[in-house]
Amino acid sequence: MTARLLEGRPVADAMWQSVAEQASAFAVQAGRPACLGLVGGADEAAAAYARQIERQFGRRGLRVLHRLVDGPEIAGAVATLSIDDTVDGIVLLTPLPAGTDPVAAALAISPDKDVDGQHPMSLGRLAQRHGYFAPATALGGLRLLQYYEIPLEGTRAVVLGRSPVVGLPLALLLLDSNATVTVCHSRTPHLAEVARQADLLCVAVGRQGLVGPEFVKPGAVVLDFGTHPLPEGGMAGDVQTASVAEAAGAITPVPGGTGPTTVAVLAQQTLRAAEQLERTRH
Amino acid sequence: MTARLLEGRPVADAMWQSVAEQASAFAVQAGRPACLGLVGGADEAAAAYARQIERQFGRRGLRVLHRLVDGPEIAGAVATLSIDDTVDGIVLLTPLPAGTDPVAAALAISPDKDVDGQHPMSLGRLAQRHGYFAPATALGGLRLLQYYEIPLEGTRAVVLGRSPVVGLPLALLLLDSNATVTVCHSRTPHLAEVARQADLLCVAVGRQGLVGPEFVKPGAVVLDFGTHPLPEGGMAGDVQTASVAEAAGAITPVPGGTGPTTVAVLAQQTLRAAEQLERTRH
Repeated sequence: MTARLLEGRPVADAMWQSVAEQASAFAVQAGRPACLGLVGGADEAAAAYARQIERQFGRRGLRVLHRLVDGPEIAGAVATLSIDDTVDGIVLLTPLPAGTDPVAAALAISPDKDVDGQHPMSLGRLAQRHGYFAPATALGGLRLLQYYEIPLEGTRAVVLGRSPVVGLPLALLLLDSNATVTVCHSRTPHLAEVARQADLLCVAVGRQGLVGPEFVKPGAVVLDFGTHPLPEGGMAGDVQTASVAEAAGAITPVPGGTGPTTVAVLAQQTLRAAEQLERTRH
Repeated sequence: MTARLLEGRPVADAMWQSVAEQASAFAVQAGRPACLGLVGGADEAAAAYARQIERQFGRRGLRVLHRLVDGPEIAGAVATLSIDDTVDGIVLLTPLPAGTDPVAAALAISPDKDVDGQHPMSLGRLAQRHGYFAPATALGGLRLLQYYEIPLEGTRAVVLGRSPVVGLPLALLLLDSNATVTVCHSRTPHLAEVARQADLLCVAVGRQGLVGPEFVKPGAVVLDFGTHPLPEGGMAGDVQTASVAEAAGAITPVPGGTGPTTVAVLAQQTLRAAEQLERTRH
């Protein structure tokens, strides 16, 4: 392996350190901890993610409320948290239970509390480049690039995947950083050839091992957002990490690459929401 | 000149014909004409655009209210139209007068009446690919491509310009049509080389004659969104039309290319808003 490994842990650690300081300052000033509300159903992946958030937030003095509800009650539970003055951020846990209208549920999030960028207003503000909450996984990827001082301005970035949760907001964030951005997807022909034009290749397609070395220009930076649990334990990404690392200049491992930054970004955005909301309340 | 000329007039004519039929059906059903509210200041370009909208809408039985106000009153005038039950669509005329907060003004538009896609909610819905009003100029470009049956799925599109009014929403619309989309901007190096990869080149940079034949792959389709009034009268685009037409397979003229579809799209979206609003009122 010749590529530099872009580990997420030191990025997240730096973020958590400032989060802990900000969280205790907020609690003193507001007389209560900043609080994130989670709303979701009984899905096991959603529950595991909720426990991870609770553990990480708890260690830095941030409060988490977890509302476990059935599909038809999701939007109502979100709306209740939206008007609760002791709740600063709201995250809809996915996958949503059967019977949930995902659009209605996202629209029930107050845009002022939309710390995972799930409301269309947040994505629109991101596209208009003013005052946005970005989806945490996408922004975590940008934070990782910034931490490792990967140049973005004037580079060619290719994003594989156009989901409104990762690929598309990441493309908008990279555009805002003055990269020239190409978005590819399942209907893109000659995918490897297009990907090989990238100085920065970001992969968020949700298909294990799709990206091999033929996708990568020698020396390119490769970000892998895939998370596929393996039957034998452990996790794989969308990128064939070992073989791609022979060609790439730098690559995120899976696990331990883009993953650890997501919850830290959620905490940062929860604190930003809390501070803004406190200002408007007084 | 070898390229096929993609004229906007027949595209707009077809749209206006269905608009006129829909408008009279709406007026009978609702007991009033569908109505577009325009809000702007004393800028001459804004006033000329308002007169053009009034003339075109008037001929098809659509009402236009034009509110001419000073900068600090813009958001209030928009908010008044947002709650007026006889107004179905709202357009902020640009350039906005000095002293206007453009974000506050756009946020005052009810998203249900945002027929020119100026509210961040509309851009976010476009990015999330559900139930959107798109900026009219960008959607007009897509309508022109559809009218001339230009294939989009699987093609490589390059958009020059990332403004939230034209370039960015057009990129989102093309992505939604399954093109592979690259967005370039003022910080893109080797712009001509990137543009030459395009099967479809869309130019919305606001710089007269920036794009010459060296930007165009032989046979590519070129859409020009530039509008630069010439001192000797007439209009030029962002593309050097005559020389680019030697290389391109098809190209929009300026004037008479992407321009005529804009106001027709506004009328279509005003009628769609009117019909949706009437349904929710009864």
